Amino acid sequence: MQLEEYLAGDDRIVLPLGSTEQHGYLSLGTDSILAQRVSLEAAEPLGVPVLPVLPYGLTPAFAAFPGSPSLRLETYVELLRDLLDSIHGQGFRRFLLVNGHGGNMPAGSLAREWMAGQRDAQVIFHSWWCSDRVLARAREVDTEPSHANWFENFPWTRLPEVTLPEGRKPPLDQAAYRVAGPAEVRELLGDGVFQGAYELPDEQTERVWRTGVDEVRELLESGWR
Amino acid sequence: MQLEEYLAGDDRIVLPLGSTEQHGYLSLGTDSILAQRVSLEAAEPLGVPVLPVLPYGLTPAFAAFPGSPSLRLETYVELLRDLLDSIHGQGFRRFLLVNGHGGNMPAGSLAREWMAGQRDAQVIFHSWWCSDRVLARAREVDTEPSHANWFENFPWTRLPEVTLPEGRKPPLDQAAYRVAGPAEVRELLGDGVFQGAYELPDEQTERVWRTGVDEVRELLESGWR
Amino acid sequence: MQLEEYLAGDDRIVLPLGSTEQHGYLSLGTDSILAQRVSLEAAEPLGVPVLPVLPYGLTPAFAAFPGSPSLRLETYVELLRDLLDSIHGQGFRRFLLVNGHGGNMPAGSLAREWMAGQRDAQVIFHSWWCSDRVLARAREVDTEPSHANWFENFPWTRLPEVTLPEGRKPPLDQAAYRVAGPAEVRELLGDGVFQGAYELPDEQTERVWRTGVDEVRELLESGWR
Amino acid sequence: MQLEEYLAGDDRIVLPLGSTEQHGYLSLGTDSILAQRVSLEAAEPLGVPVLPVLPYGLTPAFAAFPGSPSLRLETYVELLRDLLDSIHGQGFRRFLLVNGHGGNMPAGSLAREWMAGQRDAQVIFHSWWCSDRVLARAREVDTEPSHANWFENFPWTRLPEVTLPEGRKPPLDQAAYRVAGPAEVRELLGDGVFQGAYELPDEQTERVWRTGVDEVRELLESGWR
Amino acid sequence: MQLEEYLAGDDRIVLPLGSTEQHGYLSLGTDSILAQRVSLEAAEPLGVPVLPVLPYGLTPAFAAFPGSPSLRLETYVELLRDLLDSIHGQGFRRFLLVNGHGGNMPAGSLAREWMAGQRDAQVIFHSWWCSDRVLARAREVDTEPSHANWFENFPWTRLPEVTLPEGRKPPLDQAAYRVAGPAEVRELLGDGVFQGAYELPDEQTERVWRTGVDEVRELLESGWR
Amino acid sequence: MQLEEYLAGDDRIVLPLGSTEQHGYLSLGTDSILAQRVSLEAAEPLGVPVLPVLPYGLTPAFAAFPGSPSLRLETYVELLRDLLDSIHGQGFRRFLLVNGHGGNMPAGSLAREWMAGQRDAQVIFHSWWCSDRVLARAREVDTEPSHANWFENFPWTRLPEVTLPEGRKPPLDQAAYRVAGPAEVRELLGDGVFQGAYELPDEQTERVWRTGVDEVRELLESGWR
Repeated sequence: MQLEEYLAGDDRIVLPLGSTEQHGYLSLGTDSILAQRVSLEAAEPLGVPVLPVLPYGLTPAFAAFPGSPSLRLETYVELLRDLLDSIHGQGFRRFLLVNGHGGNMPAGSLAREWMAGQRDAQVIFHSWWCSDRVLARAREVDTEPSHANWFENFPWTRLPEVTLPEGRKPPLDQAAYRVAGPAEVRELLGDGVFQGAYELPDEQTERVWRTGVDEVRELLESGWR
Repeated sequence: MQLEEYLAGDDRIVLPLGSTEQHGYLSLGTDSILAQRVSLEAAEPLGVPVLPVLPYGLTPAFAAFPGSPSLRLETYVELLRDLLDSIHGQGFRRFLLVNGHGGNMPAGSLAREWMAGQRDAQVIFHSWWCSDRVLARAREVDTEPSHANWFENFPWTRLPEVTLPEGRKPPLDQAAYRVAGPAEVRELLGDGVFQGAYELPDEQTERVWRTGVDEVRELLESGWR
Repeated sequence: MQLEEYLAGDDRIVLPLGSTEQHGYLSLGTDSILAQRVSLEAAEPLGVPVLPVLPYGLTPAFAAFPGSPSLRLETYVELLRDLLDSIHGQGFRRFLLVNGHGGNMPAGSLAREWMAGQRDAQVIFHSWWCSDRVLARAREVDTEPSHANWFENFPWTRLPEVTLPEGRKPPLDQAAYRVAGPAEVRELLGDGVFQGAYELPDEQTERVWRTGVDEVRELLESGWR
Repeated sequence: MQLEEYLAGDDRIVLPLGSTEQHGYLSLGTDSILAQRVSLEAAEPLGVPVLPVLPYGLTPAFAAFPGSPSLRLETYVELLRDLLDSIHGQGFRRFLLVNGHGGNMPAGSLAREWMAGQRDAQVIFHSWWCSDRVLARAREVDTEPSHANWFENFPWTRLPEVTLPEGRKPPLDQAAYRVAGPAEVRELLGDGVFQGAYELPDEQTERVWRTGVDEVRELLESGWR
Repeated sequence: MQLEEYLAGDDRIVLPLGSTEQHGYLSLGTDSILAQRVSLEAAEPLGVPVLPVLPYGLTPAFAAFPGSPSLRLETYVELLRDLLDSIHGQGFRRFLLVNGHGGNMPAGSLAREWMAGQRDAQVIFHSWWCSDRVLARAREVDTEPSHANWFENFPWTRLPEVTLPEGRKPPLDQAAYRVAGPAEVRELLGDGVFQGAYELPDEQTERVWRTGVDEVRELLESGWR
Repeated sequence: MQLEEYLAGDDRIVLPLGSTEQHGYLSLGTDSILAQRVSLEAAEPLGVPVLPVLPYGLTPAFAAFPGSPSLRLETYVELLRDLLDSIHGQGFRRFLLVNGHGGNMPAGSLAREWMAGQRDAQVIFHSWWCSDRVLARAREVDTEPSHANWFENFPWTRLPEVTLPEGRKPPLDQAAYRVAGPAEVRELLGDGVFQGAYELPDEQTERVWRTGVDEVRELLESGWR
């Protein structure tokens, strides 16, 4: 009932896109947690509703890590199409997809395709952690922001009773990773972290986080045509 | 990494199935919240992992209520098939689908079909709130357990600052509902609640809840072949 | 040409949904025969046309019984969607799906979804044998109406030169059946019958049948909005 | 149970493919009736089982004739694939698809594709009425064997209380038909018959029929590798 | 930009359909080359645009010949549907599909289905090499026009440095081919040619070619309603 | 036959991925031409076969430019999956997808997913024009390599009798482009070029081209695991 009142004066809505997958020493839900939280922190002050994060996405390369379910590409695309169709049918017109997982990039292609079929709708697909702005801020903190390392290590993604390794992990061999099947990926990654420092002080990661929240909020405010 | 240790000694896993949809004066996420929570309360003491609840399902009849996204049936079926395939590929063999939404029943059909194609896997599809046992317990409390009324009204599904109507809502006209399109459903349901008392004392609903948790736990313990 | 005249004054049509599958000592086509016949007996006096029964449905649990073809869920759903779309495009507006097989329940979910996408159409999905009314009448006759037992044993579903066992079959172990793969189902069911008496006198089953026909006719007459 | 005994010594099975569609003055089920009957007459003497005819196929050009439901091509293909997969899984290895409708030709393409993916299966797709042999025999009877004319007019496809026009219908304008949408098809065809004589004496059509049955039987006997 | 000017005065467009597959001693791209070239020679004098040939089609029977990729039927159908939808959305209304491969026949079924769903569009599906007219002309030249033999042997489909066998290949055993899996097809075909003369003088094949081009041009000029 | 000999000693193959779409003053086939040509120049010296370029891809944003057909994402993904499956079934094991169009990025996701399901296959997805190496070289030539400007302007993509504008086009408003529907894209782009110089001297673009060819060749030689 609250949404009906809202729709009388606004038509923006946020759909966070996550993934459930290995994140080294962090929660399997890291990407979902971050996408959901960055959305809520950005949208709540504006009164824009945030849908529940979609906790399953595209992560076939992690197939040899248990607890990393992956959808087929077609399924993921149809899922997003159905969600957009359905929410659009209920009156929303401006959709911000806040993505938390690198493998989900085809969601951006779907957003473009879907938008091309609607005269009255706009969709912004935004991968919150890898925008120019957030990456620039992250690199001020440390040169290697990456999967499951300090860059995703926040109070809200850490697991209780898990101790992290000290030091830095050597860089991932990207060329080998490119043609690695699940078993080879498993072997290449070991503990699942790609590279770099496992953890940094919260006041440093907090600055990156804040940049991410600010950018999402600005998109919500002024990213539309 | 914890899941790999787990898989050395066990192969059970729980996938809660929810829906995001109007629930009268309760949270849009009621079905998801309940499926997730009943799963966690049942599984944690056994050490069985619970995947994130799937927050989107089949609810086409509520298309005229904003905030009730619905998937097409094919999409939902493929989504579940992909999840089962993927998790199965990672070593799990006994799957308990804990369903929180009446519209999701085809997930049970998919479970049967999927299981028929796997020699080494078992799937139990369990709609936690409408088993004989939970319904019997519920009817001891009140004759009309139903959508969005006291039966789904728990401390964890109530919204802050929402006051519920007093008294009982008259019964839904089931024959009219059967052939109602979204607009007619909207009109028939008004505030979205089907019928009966909006709220009962927590100690009464707690008994129903406890029965639900117990049954899920027993299925996890002894529902397998 | 006759249908065009009909459409000038009416827009109802019946689509019977069957299945081809093992029925113990009865015809593989039992579900189709019953759905088709109950439809014809109900609809002909009203002049409402009945489409040919769809003889293939969802019966994955019987995969180890030869002669029990089963469709994938997505295929079945798309098949029904296409049929409804096509017939709707030819002028029909009120569709009664008369279902004869328990596994086909997702057809009801599809009916709901399809109807939600059409402003001018109504679909009733009716599983003729398991309505409250028919089951109540059946239980007056015998406490165990079930798959392939007396409940489906009519002059029009019996096979020539097949002799039925005497006595009652012990009840199916439902908990075991729930997690049984095709081979285990085969073993659990033996001759294919679920439980109870194989045969009852025709004057008893005739009463059940008559109730089924009456209910379908009443739905055709007054089930619409 | 009879099929299990059969499979101990044989692995052939027949699936008739029909269509429900306008046939001028003949039954809407003409294609289904003929495919089913020609299959039964050919297979029964050999003891080869015949599945129920699939009564829905591809007939988009008749969309403006009520009672002519048509499936989308993808749906039809998936339906056939599922049926073949399922029956193959139950032990059959040699499949004869007896087709009764011109629009269903893509079933032959699917048969080829499906067979290419199975080492141990053979599929023959046979459109019974348009083989060289049957057409040759038909043209001995009359030069214009065609849709809904004498060529499909048998005691088992005629409707009671329907009187046929006398004389011959002028030939269909094939070039116009080629680019006609449903409304134009409707206009071009008028009563639905393509061209030629509406009816011929049964002893003449019987000869064509007999040729069709013989050919199907010979395929069943000696069409395999 | 040129197409926008064109659309101001015309709405015809040609889509050639090819296949990449073994053609004995000729190019793997023979079907594509011929479909593209016959389209261009026919359309250019009329100023009608020709889209790039679709070089992949349906050729499952050649699965044991490397370099013969084949699409699943559903994929091919959806691909064509998308192309027609997309081009139609850009203003074209009369589509000529010029097909160069026997296995692609279901494209004609799709064309019919697609056209039935559009009020304002016409599609002609034309398999250029097997029209009555082209085959008649071909048979004047030689009695066995066939796959990969002289009938497809043109200066533009020959491979450099490949010498052809002399003489005629004996006829293909069509009955064996009908039920042959990929390995058996491989064995039956040997060098991939079906039968007959490998090569004829260019002035003879040129006459066939000219007939093919003429027919395509006439369809473009006067095949529409 | 040549491919069979090749497969005895090698298992690499190249599939170029193109698009047919507006390219300002250049050929509609620019992306296809470039992907095909860069593949051939790289692969021929190594004797690695190159399949025909797939000339249709994902370009929904250009829907208002005639001659820019776009596939739905699901269709494109299934098309690629079928091609990989089919070619893999014919003996190839190392696949290089050389992509020429920005919209086709989901092909890379499919490549990853497909590879994860094959133990013995490797797929490299390489967008030839936007690798770090090629972009670095391009930026040495001019700061704005972009769609349809000098960066794609080669002797083999220019149209006869088309004169290009002089000077530089002002930069595209990326924020506006992000939420633009087809009509707005049309308006934003005008002649279709994104920004920058329309043309540069061939000796400058030739250096970029050479870098692209070299990189593809090196991937073919040493990009595998």
